[in-house]
Amino acid sequence: MKSYLDCIPCFFEQALRAGRITTDDEQVLKQLLDELGKRLHQISLDSTPPETGRLIYRLVREITGNPDPFRELKLQSTREALALYPSLKRTVEGSDDSLLTAIRIAIAGNVIDFGASATFDIKDAIETALVNDFAICDYSAFKDKLADTKEVLYIGDNAGETVFDRLLIEQLKKPVIFVVREKPVINDATIEDAVQAGIDQVATIVSSGTDAPGTVLNTCSPEFKEMLDQSAFTIAKGQGNYESLSNEDYLVFFMLKAKCQIIANDLGVTKGDIVLKGINTER
Amino acid sequence: MKSYLDCIPCFFEQALRAGRITTDDEQVLKQLLDELGKRLHQISLDSTPPETGRLIYRLVREITGNPDPFRELKLQSTREALALYPSLKRTVEGSDDSLLTAIRIAIAGNVIDFGASATFDIKDAIETALVNDFAICDYSAFKDKLADTKEVLYIGDNAGETVFDRLLIEQLKKPVIFVVREKPVINDATIEDAVQAGIDQVATIVSSGTDAPGTVLNTCSPEFKEMLDQSAFTIAKGQGNYESLSNEDYLVFFMLKAKCQIIANDLGVTKGDIVLKGINTER
Repeated sequence: MKSYLDCIPCFFEQALRAGRITTDDEQVLKQLLDELGKRLHQISLDSTPPETGRLIYRLVREITGNPDPFRELKLQSTREALALYPSLKRTVEGSDDSLLTAIRIAIAGNVIDFGASATFDIKDAIETALVNDFAICDYSAFKDKLADTKEVLYIGDNAGETVFDRLLIEQLKKPVIFVVREKPVINDATIEDAVQAGIDQVATIVSSGTDAPGTVLNTCSPEFKEMLDQSAFTIAKGQGNYESLSNEDYLVFFMLKAKCQIIANDLGVTKGDIVLKGINTER
Repeated sequence: MKSYLDCIPCFFEQALRAGRITTDDEQVLKQLLDELGKRLHQISLDSTPPETGRLIYRLVREITGNPDPFRELKLQSTREALALYPSLKRTVEGSDDSLLTAIRIAIAGNVIDFGASATFDIKDAIETALVNDFAICDYSAFKDKLADTKEVLYIGDNAGETVFDRLLIEQLKKPVIFVVREKPVINDATIEDAVQAGIDQVATIVSSGTDAPGTVLNTCSPEFKEMLDQSAFTIAKGQGNYESLSNEDYLVFFMLKAKCQIIANDLGVTKGDIVLKGINTER
């Protein structure tokens, strides 16, 4: 997905929100926004939002001097999600369609996103995701392709959300490679965060090599790109992965909650909707 | 009122909204936002939002080549408001407190603001303003000071809203000088707009000399500043006038609807509230 003009005010909101996690010094925060302003003319509308996200969070790190502003919030999200894990595990196993229920819960976990908003309610998101209809639901293709694949490449999104990914991985009944970001960016999961969520107990964890809040291919490692090329079944969680991979030529099932109007428009759904969307599935 | 960090993303939204009134050329709109970005470091948080609004709409005029992008929308607002005038006049005259009802309607007219939002519902705003409580209501001081003054200085805000100002002016029962912007900026009323609303039939129309969307004193004419210095009773409509005059040393009654969260916070009210607030009234 390319960037839209309406993303631009939001880039400034994101920078401000990320900056405020680190400092309440108005002058430092103003400097952060000023620097983003100066570089705005270098940001093409043909680039994807996570490419700009990468620039924004680099600026945040540079100007605030904090290499991982979301460290504490990430830990806290993982802890809170782990506390919910046992009861959600029972919900999944007790349901008529354990796989679909696990998908719903994995999507609900996608509300844990400090890039899209400063606040969210995970329990409320789970309750909603368990009962609401999908705006797009390519579940049938998902099951067919899953039955055919030997292995699943699962591109994660945020720390904490990873606990809910674990529930889904347990229902896939296939070997899973779980992909994380190389460096901290917003609250996106790194190897450390995935291990804290217990993903290492159910999957092999690898880094995509990127420090962008998405799978921006020209910032990913050759090893990861090779994996993606070879993958017969890829899951990509969240908006950042959708934005960076939606126009690519891979078979991918996106799972996300449409948290902003722009992505909702791009998908042809309503803001707040949950989506399971496959691309390039007819091959 | 100074600018807040949260105003900065909104400055970009305003620029985009104003630009889109004139053109749908994405490259031109991107250039507009890029130019604003480049100048952001020159915008101090100590300046008021209308000072930045002035810069934004100058950029819009420069880059789009359109000196008055809101011309047609202003005409349309005035026409729609004039169509409501006869029935609102009956509402005012039939009410127990005609002055307070006219104030409520004049505040309702303040929703006609293309700077704060792209859409609004004037009839809905009137119905709400006629029944809702004021979050701040310095009506008693208003009546006292009005009884004592020989003349009223009435600083208008938007085109269309001027029709509702006319209803209030008719209830003030004092000679009124109605103040407009010197040049078109957003949909703020100029002399032409005030005349179209029939203000010339109930008041003397003067320009403040500014091309800012507010009463930014260092951009106003010496003649207007002299009037303001001498005025014993000033009414200032809308957010832009509040933002530019709220920290000044004049006796002013502000009438507005708090259309953004930042102004609501500054006033200590809830977004959407209606306000009649006097400053420097104990003199």
